[in-house]
Amino acid sequence: MTAGCLFCAIVADLSRTSVVLDHPDALGFLDHRPVFPGHVLVVPRSHTVTLADLAPELVGPFFAQVQRVAAAIPEALGAHGTFVAMNNVVSQSVPHLHVHVVPRRRKDGLRGFFWPRVHYASDAERDAVAARLRAVLT
Amino acid sequence: MTAGCLFCAIVADLSRTSVVLDHPDALGFLDHRPVFPGHVLVVPRSHTVTLADLAPELVGPFFAQVQRVAAAIPEALGAHGTFVAMNNVVSQSVPHLHVHVVPRRRKDGLRGFFWPRVHYASDAERDAVAARLRAVLT
Repeated sequence: MTAGCLFCAIVADLSRTSVVLDHPDALGFLDHRPVFPGHVLVVPRSHTVTLADLAPELVGPFFAQVQRVAAAIPEALGAHGTFVAMNNVVSQSVPHLHVHVVPRRRKDGLRGFFWPRVHYASDAERDAVAARLRAVLT
Repeated sequence: MTAGCLFCAIVADLSRTSVVLDHPDALGFLDHRPVFPGHVLVVPRSHTVTLADLAPELVGPFFAQVQRVAAAIPEALGAHGTFVAMNNVVSQSVPHLHVHVVPRRRKDGLRGFFWPRVHYASDAERDAVAARLRAVLT
């Protein structure tokens, strides 16, 4: 537990929130200011800041629980789908990894973050970006 | 491979896109209309529609590759953070699971999807939503 971390405090005292999933590999609870009702935050129990920081042996068990929540929301709430997202560093309101799982319905009015889109200025610019990523990933 | 699936076609013919990660457990390539340059899509090689549909034995290996991409983007592109997200069914432009990994910089102007937020009408409404989810998850 990290002093001053809101989500560590929730892990330590479940009475602070509405828990929906209490599992050794993850805790799921309602976001108190949801995008839509039923918006769940899934967090690892041990303090972890970003996805990149999640211990390799926890990645599978943790995302298995995220998957469970994403599968449960349509069944439990009659949603048509889900939006599953995490902010790492930028726009990350609490520096303890949290995956948002948001119920979605058709025509629910959520415009999404997926705009505006841009175009690469040229194929060469695109290829240069891809090459930089490949160099780190291979 | 599912006929007519754009991402199955990319998996079958990598020349169709700018590949950044070619791994047995996932393929990563540049979104052709990025939110920001370096916006990567990570997909499972076998046709899988949503996160809930991903085979349990693939969840860990797949998200390990998502994690690698999220860790690589700051290093490769000088980003401050990342946004990692997937749409399931609603707003899902291609019905083959794809995780967006978007480079983020402070003050990059992305307002995010996280607004407007709402409040639960009452604690009772909130508790009822949590109870429905818990019933499916336990």
